[in-house]
Amino acid sequence: MKLNMNKEELRKFLLHAPQSSIIKYVENIHPVDVLDVLHENVDDRKDILNRLPEKFIADILDEAEIDEKYEILMEFSENKQKNIIEEMSSDELTDLLGILDENKANKILAKMTDEDARVVRQLLSYAPDTAAGIMATEFISLKTDMTVCETLKYLQKYGQENENIDDLYVVDKFDKLKGIVSLKELVTKDFDTKISDIVHTKIEGILFNTDQEEVGHRFEKYGFLTMPVVDNSNRLLGIVTVDDVMQILRDETTEDIHRLAGIDEGEKVDGTLKESIRSRLPWLIINLVTAILASSVVGIFEGTIEKVVSLATFMPIVAGMGGNAGTQTLTIIVRGLALGELNFKNMKKVFFKEVGVGVLCGATIGVIIGVLGYIWEGNFIFGIVIGVAMILNMVVATISGYLVPIVLKKFKVDPALASSVFVTTFTDVLGFFFFLGLATLFLRYLV
Amino acid sequence: MKLNMNKEELRKFLLHAPQSSIIKYVENIHPVDVLDVLHENVDDRKDILNRLPEKFIADILDEAEIDEKYEILMEFSENKQKNIIEEMSSDELTDLLGILDENKANKILAKMTDEDARVVRQLLSYAPDTAAGIMATEFISLKTDMTVCETLKYLQKYGQENENIDDLYVVDKFDKLKGIVSLKELVTKDFDTKISDIVHTKIEGILFNTDQEEVGHRFEKYGFLTMPVVDNSNRLLGIVTVDDVMQILRDETTEDIHRLAGIDEGEKVDGTLKESIRSRLPWLIINLVTAILASSVVGIFEGTIEKVVSLATFMPIVAGMGGNAGTQTLTIIVRGLALGELNFKNMKKVFFKEVGVGVLCGATIGVIIGVLGYIWEGNFIFGIVIGVAMILNMVVATISGYLVPIVLKKFKVDPALASSVFVTTFTDVLGFFFFLGLATLFLRYLV
Repeated sequence: MKLNMNKEELRKFLLHAPQSSIIKYVENIHPVDVLDVLHENVDDRKDILNRLPEKFIADILDEAEIDEKYEILMEFSENKQKNIIEEMSSDELTDLLGILDENKANKILAKMTDEDARVVRQLLSYAPDTAAGIMATEFISLKTDMTVCETLKYLQKYGQENENIDDLYVVDKFDKLKGIVSLKELVTKDFDTKISDIVHTKIEGILFNTDQEEVGHRFEKYGFLTMPVVDNSNRLLGIVTVDDVMQILRDETTEDIHRLAGIDEGEKVDGTLKESIRSRLPWLIINLVTAILASSVVGIFEGTIEKVVSLATFMPIVAGMGGNAGTQTLTIIVRGLALGELNFKNMKKVFFKEVGVGVLCGATIGVIIGVLGYIWEGNFIFGIVIGVAMILNMVVATISGYLVPIVLKKFKVDPALASSVFVTTFTDVLGFFFFLGLATLFLRYLV
Repeated sequence: MKLNMNKEELRKFLLHAPQSSIIKYVENIHPVDVLDVLHENVDDRKDILNRLPEKFIADILDEAEIDEKYEILMEFSENKQKNIIEEMSSDELTDLLGILDENKANKILAKMTDEDARVVRQLLSYAPDTAAGIMATEFISLKTDMTVCETLKYLQKYGQENENIDDLYVVDKFDKLKGIVSLKELVTKDFDTKISDIVHTKIEGILFNTDQEEVGHRFEKYGFLTMPVVDNSNRLLGIVTVDDVMQILRDETTEDIHRLAGIDEGEKVDGTLKESIRSRLPWLIINLVTAILASSVVGIFEGTIEKVVSLATFMPIVAGMGGNAGTQTLTIIVRGLALGELNFKNMKKVFFKEVGVGVLCGATIGVIIGVLGYIWEGNFIFGIVIGVAMILNMVVATISGYLVPIVLKKFKVDPALASSVFVTTFTDVLGFFFFLGLATLFLRYLV
């Protein structure tokens, strides 16, 4: 649902239309669309921003990536910065302050009201990738003896400044979370219904230190629009909203996908050459080291290869197929961990299944390649050697594909990170070792 | 926010509590939690289901995976099935009918009211992975001359049966989409405000045949709770809601991750051994064919390897590093395409960046491995051969990592599917060819 203008039309409108019509029109424009225009026309940024109302600028800042927030804010005079900051939501302000150095952060804190500054300081004390780190502190709390009509009048008075009203909360005098009323439920009940009649009381908040990815999966599972965040004493600290969560899930998944392939989590497809090199070269160098390790295994067996040169031809197949099988297992385990589908209950079952996959796929591929090896070399033992090496390597592949991410997770390292380098090292080193080692053992039958 | 019972307590409650207290309590239980209990206790399924109210069973069915929907529904008598179907939402019923054979589908259609059956038949005519395929037809439409108070009274009367009221829609007498009022906005305005004063009219619906992944990304970008789906004449057909979209995005991403690794999109981490073998073995066999293709390139050069056996030692490094670089590019391109960050505008720029990455990373890795080769063999030309082969292969790697997914997309094949097999075939075949070919050319300097 964007405005019926393309980006270029929007740019011209924002630059040249009378400011009065911009101000009137602006509520029909989504801040994300203006942000797109600002991205693509950096030279016009200052001019465009200075024609927009302060509330709308705050909305744009809420949608901007964090490093961009600061750049945009700095386009304004000190006074105007202060007004814009007042309109911004606490969670977005916290993100902004979180990346600034202390000096800059203090300057911005000084521009806030005492109350806002206190809230933001509090929010800054939570780890940024937890429920509390992503929550907003703006929410509406109700008393149970209010009626639906009274609640609506309350929302008419105080709801407009608050974007997070998809659910309303009931707390006791110690701020403990007692219940939740969805806005949907509120508006479908007669005006004189009491809140106490429609409040859901059997609810559980998210503990403040829950990992943000876990928070995301709960939203996915239950389809909520907001969720309450509580401390250890069940005091309501703030709420998390579905729109923030969607972006977090997208970023976490991109991070996993990138890490599995050896790319920095932050690399953008349309980033600069320098950023790409910085993101990928270190990983390639790590891979080079492990590749050299694997090839030094080959080096040990050069004497054997010299006698049976076809070993060199078949060598990459054994290692490569192990790598493929390992990557399959690794991927399903990493994604299973990320989605919470792999847990203590089914861990053992999954392990035996993966070993089974290694044995059965290994046997199938081993028989095929064994027969081909036999035909190619005209030597039965050659076929046996490559077939057995293939089976052994595929079993190693699935076992390492299973164990590596789980061990990394135990040590609190992201299972997606560095997993594939470990797994391919195992399958390369052992693949070459099994194949060339067996060939050396049976050398007299091969020459 | 789940019920304060663990799964075992919930199971016992559902099986043994008086039915009256279940019916009273059930609105505090999330259907997803009951679904979890049903998953893990298949033997109790029928008993538990038969104690639940029909509306709640419909809610459970709305949350269940499609093949499960049918199984659960079949636990009931024909009569009860009819009642449950009446409570289900049109989009979920459509999903269910979409997987059944015609006979079964007709049986279920016969149990619906004529009007519902007509709607579902219409929905079945849309492609399931498009906006229209995932939309619900239940939404509230308003007239612009209503006041906020009248609208609230209307919602009190008709809103309870309708879960999709986060946004309300204004259509003209030809059903054309004219505007949208968010529920948030409605409840924060005075009772006598006219809808015409708060309606957003500059909106654009999603065209019915838009791909569901694209729909998902618009939700992510704009943070909407619902979006309207329209036909070519801008008639409002239905709406898509954020909770459905989150599940779609999760599944689409899992599909991409799985396909990049050569796993069936539907494989579950805790599935059966048979399912895993069926998902992975075909892919391994395809990889085997390409591995044999690559090794037949090695076979051509057996004569050269016989003379300089160290070539066998370094051979896997050239091919492997090309594979790594290719996977990096491939992954960033596939994800960029999926997120819509790679488009016609920046396609050329990204291509040249990737070539640059290939040249620069290739040069760095090429120099390192060239020096190591020189030291290992004590032969300067050997170092040059492996270094140059590495540079060439890394450039091939980034170019094929860029081109393969884009070409697949042009041919309307999922860029994640089969991309990696193509890219590694290129880097293996050409990696061996460059290295061993150059070695053969300069053979007299190597022996």
